[in-house]
Amino acid sequence: MSIESTDNGISGSGPVPAEQQAREEELVERVVASFESTTDARLKQIMEAAVRHLHAFLREVRLTEAEWEQGIDFLTAVGHATTQRRQEFVLLSDTLGASMQTITINHQAYADATQATVLGPFFLDDAPLVERGGDIARGASGQPCWVEGTVRDTNGDPVAGARIDVWEADQDGFYDVQYDDRRTSARGHLFTASDGSYKFWAITPTPYPIPHDGPVGRMLTATGRSPMRASHLHFKVSAPGHRTLITHIFVRGDDLLSSDSVFGVKDLLVKEFAVQPLGTPGPDGRDLGSKTWSRTHFDIVLAPAGV
Amino acid sequence: MSIESTDNGISGSGPVPAEQQAREEELVERVVASFESTTDARLKQIMEAAVRHLHAFLREVRLTEAEWEQGIDFLTAVGHATTQRRQEFVLLSDTLGASMQTITINHQAYADATQATVLGPFFLDDAPLVERGGDIARGASGQPCWVEGTVRDTNGDPVAGARIDVWEADQDGFYDVQYDDRRTSARGHLFTASDGSYKFWAITPTPYPIPHDGPVGRMLTATGRSPMRASHLHFKVSAPGHRTLITHIFVRGDDLLSSDSVFGVKDLLVKEFAVQPLGTPGPDGRDLGSKTWSRTHFDIVLAPAGV
Repeated sequence: MSIESTDNGISGSGPVPAEQQAREEELVERVVASFESTTDARLKQIMEAAVRHLHAFLREVRLTEAEWEQGIDFLTAVGHATTQRRQEFVLLSDTLGASMQTITINHQAYADATQATVLGPFFLDDAPLVERGGDIARGASGQPCWVEGTVRDTNGDPVAGARIDVWEADQDGFYDVQYDDRRTSARGHLFTASDGSYKFWAITPTPYPIPHDGPVGRMLTATGRSPMRASHLHFKVSAPGHRTLITHIFVRGDDLLSSDSVFGVKDLLVKEFAVQPLGTPGPDGRDLGSKTWSRTHFDIVLAPAGV
Repeated sequence: MSIESTDNGISGSGPVPAEQQAREEELVERVVASFESTTDARLKQIMEAAVRHLHAFLREVRLTEAEWEQGIDFLTAVGHATTQRRQEFVLLSDTLGASMQTITINHQAYADATQATVLGPFFLDDAPLVERGGDIARGASGQPCWVEGTVRDTNGDPVAGARIDVWEADQDGFYDVQYDDRRTSARGHLFTASDGSYKFWAITPTPYPIPHDGPVGRMLTATGRSPMRASHLHFKVSAPGHRTLITHIFVRGDDLLSSDSVFGVKDLLVKEFAVQPLGTPGPDGRDLGSKTWSRTHFDIVLAPAGV
């Protein structure tokens, strides 16, 4: 692999002599060759590619030894910030767009199937069941929000009994699992009706920062980036015979749509959240009292399994 | 950046459609653009290059989501294995050749200056002073070894008063700092005489494994690689006006020279360690009693500072 540019105009070291380049390339080949006895062909492919790209990076930027030490120190700090309750490596992957790229690679567009986006660190397998039309908020702070739509396949046929998991941050920007009191709120699952329809109460999504008091937060600060995520409501939709969809919907008009810290926004996932005049009764007759509420509509299309 | 090959013949997913490639490339550019406000030009360059190479890797191997999770789990384990006494990220960098590549980049060949190799994790700043001709072993187990040579500059002139730090594993494959008893052994520093000469007693280097009971060791096992390092004696040589040299010398005839686990071996650093017939007195008249001993010669050439 040749390096793209060694005369980068910043380090001032000038072009790399051919003899030096040969020495660096010989080392790359020696490291790649060390994996030749790997019996798992896929692991061999991944390790060889990782080595080639890692070395290409080191050579392109002409990494100094002091910078290498800073890199080791940064990864060590990320490792030490990772606990049972916090996954700083996932945050790092998210903020470098690696999570979103992995999703993009594995969820290629198929007909009009709804696009996928990042899972994030706050999904739980055992979210409580709510009836269709029930409220997933369970006391979470925020403006009530009516969410409805259908789940269909790419032929346009309704998918009955699809499981929909939904979860979101509260008005203060925190998911239930970020509180110490073991609450379960702003989280639930429900199933579609025979016509593929679903409906539930949630809360209007609000923006929040990813955890930014650790090394990833320091990286964002050093590079002038914001830790804020665009407001969103998470969905995971699964049904036998269909590709499981993990996605969000975003709020039209949110200032953060163009600078989402984990690169999760896709245009087709941005939805109108229409705030209703004060005193408007809910679509199910619910009396919202002195609160305003919003409503949104999200029609979901599932790709077939195995595409 | 275009990907090198998406039809890798292993994943069986076939070539990536142009529309999908465009989607992936758009994401790369979006992530790179997120660093545009970085005021430190060098940091900006490094982050942008890291993002491009990371994404190129993901796209080339078409990383699956399960493999992404394995990667996160592996890095987490490396982070958690890293303590005050053990640097698993340095081991990872070493075993992927990244440490050696960084040294190769930063210590370009200059005239006949002695080549550099990896520092390793066992250097200490405060190794004890020994007189020229003294013994750095300080009780470490192993065959005595007489080491002598000169330190010169690239004009061939002797470098007087150069500081030479030397350190090595004992016969059981452990450095002093790997024992719990706070011993200091097989480690020391001395200075060259006015004619640039130096000489000391050490122990004949023996092979040993890098710490391989952690995640890096599991990576080596999974890929059929050995954790063994070729036998070596570490040198760090510094003198005002000269580029500091960090290197090892290796033992001619060692079976491990071609499979050193951290890619540190260079042909010019392989030296004869001549074992002396039993009963041969030391060059300084030392009576070795019932022990055999070896001797080696290492002439060091320092590059000028700033090259």
